[in-house]
Amino acid sequence: MPTTRTVEKWAAQVRAGNIRAISRAVSAIENRSPEAESLLRELFPYTGRACRVGVTGAPGTGKSTLVDKLAACYRLQNKSVGIIAIDPSSPFSGGAILGDRIRMQGHASDEGIFIRSMATRGYLGGLAQATGDTALLLDAAGKDMILIETVGVGQGEVEIVRLADCTVVVLVPGLGDDVQSLKAGLMEIADIFVINKAEREGAEKLEEQTRAVLQLVPERDGWRCPVVRTVATESRGIDELASQIERFRQHLCEAKDRSAKALAYWKDWLLRLLERRAVERVLAKGMSEAEFDLIVEQVAARKKDPYSAVSEILGRSGS
Amino acid sequence: MPTTRTVEKWAAQVRAGNIRAISRAVSAIENRSPEAESLLRELFPYTGRACRVGVTGAPGTGKSTLVDKLAACYRLQNKSVGIIAIDPSSPFSGGAILGDRIRMQGHASDEGIFIRSMATRGYLGGLAQATGDTALLLDAAGKDMILIETVGVGQGEVEIVRLADCTVVVLVPGLGDDVQSLKAGLMEIADIFVINKAEREGAEKLEEQTRAVLQLVPERDGWRCPVVRTVATESRGIDELASQIERFRQHLCEAKDRSAKALAYWKDWLLRLLERRAVERVLAKGMSEAEFDLIVEQVAARKKDPYSAVSEILGRSGS
Repeated sequence: MPTTRTVEKWAAQVRAGNIRAISRAVSAIENRSPEAESLLRELFPYTGRACRVGVTGAPGTGKSTLVDKLAACYRLQNKSVGIIAIDPSSPFSGGAILGDRIRMQGHASDEGIFIRSMATRGYLGGLAQATGDTALLLDAAGKDMILIETVGVGQGEVEIVRLADCTVVVLVPGLGDDVQSLKAGLMEIADIFVINKAEREGAEKLEEQTRAVLQLVPERDGWRCPVVRTVATESRGIDELASQIERFRQHLCEAKDRSAKALAYWKDWLLRLLERRAVERVLAKGMSEAEFDLIVEQVAARKKDPYSAVSEILGRSGS
Repeated sequence: MPTTRTVEKWAAQVRAGNIRAISRAVSAIENRSPEAESLLRELFPYTGRACRVGVTGAPGTGKSTLVDKLAACYRLQNKSVGIIAIDPSSPFSGGAILGDRIRMQGHASDEGIFIRSMATRGYLGGLAQATGDTALLLDAAGKDMILIETVGVGQGEVEIVRLADCTVVVLVPGLGDDVQSLKAGLMEIADIFVINKAEREGAEKLEEQTRAVLQLVPERDGWRCPVVRTVATESRGIDELASQIERFRQHLCEAKDRSAKALAYWKDWLLRLLERRAVERVLAKGMSEAEFDLIVEQVAARKKDPYSAVSEILGRSGS
């Protein structure tokens, strides 16, 4: 455990935007080290200023390039940017994401942009937690805009998207399964749709389809989800996207039930954190993942009932 | 705590289909009494036979009548039926649901049908758990078909729907927000769409719209989601719905990855049960809901950080 003094110093470095200090903190969060928690406790009072934008879409929609160009657009506006790229299908930070990141090396010498890929660790769905923690960290580090880039699939993804203030769903024409992005509950959580690679054939048809589907979904709090066409590789439509994000942010600020929403947000966050911590404590004391999987097999085969199984796990941990 | 002997006797009564014994068990599950767990442990080995059908849709879509007529259809096929009706917005089992249930009194003298409304208790999202437990109970009680009727809104709902083997989403024409059912990720989990009140104007258009939206969603495991038109009040289309449900059940039985799916299902179930139990233990030892809400307010106001808050809660419970 680091001393209070060390953590205070570290927190001060993070707040000053020191990239090494921030990187070390993200690693600590990913590894769930206890020092990450000490640091975040120190930093929490300085959060709440940044705008978190979730950018999600199927693989191949050009999310990374879009995020890259959006970041460049914010830099021109003199806003500092943090980027968190998530690939839940990857067992480690790397692969395609790493390839994408190479394109971002153009920003490498710009201290105003911090870029980090994250990947899932363990089986307890800690990715949303780690992402939320990293967003808080970058918020405290003074980033104005935090872009969270994620592949739009599955329940865990939806949980990550819920961390964002504004969610952008990216579609592309001509990709066989581009409209996959419309599934997985993303329709419900999209605040802005982007049709990227809009120079391609079928862009118009996809826009029509998207608008048709949007008409089936009722307005949320008086916000009618816009559809923005972009060609990210040529930086086309990026300014329009940035201004729609700003418009949505204004819309949020003017919402009447803003404080009720904040309470619901934090209640949800606390319950999830409590669930994770409680289960972590139990499993850390009690069993390995292999042992847990063995119990799952016994339950599926009706050789053990789930209630006894859970009592046994809780009992082992002495809870 | 009941003795082992008492629980064994109770379980035998449930397995024999004794309605009083089953009712008492559902109440025990709803109240989270420890005897419910003892009973379910005893009954678990006798589960896995029933077909669980989730029926979901916005208020006013006529779900209850549909479920009622579907139950009658199964009774004609000599299948026994259990109905679980859920209203998460209701603070107690009653209200509109109770009114709906009065229509079901036609079944009251039929021992082959068991009907029970359930409502949410507490703030820990225990409804999905209670519903899952009740479905296991009715399964052990020998019900062939278990119909789970639920209003299609929100995340908790999706969790409930995931308990079912087959999910039916009900829409109606001419209801202003009928297409609400298409949001909340229900598009992704629907196995069969029903257009109820199909004698109304707009039924054809709604069917077209639904099919159009379905074409945007890729097939799941080779199943193309059918759209069935019904007029439940006149029992029209109910046989067709029953045969589509049977077709889907067959489809599930023939799936190649059936056992992998069962393992995933039970792993998910165990983790959720573990989370709930771990948090229940912690909160039972540590704090009231009012105290918890106070902490939420402090966090939202940035007066306390979430990590310290959760540590404090875990610490109080001695975990």
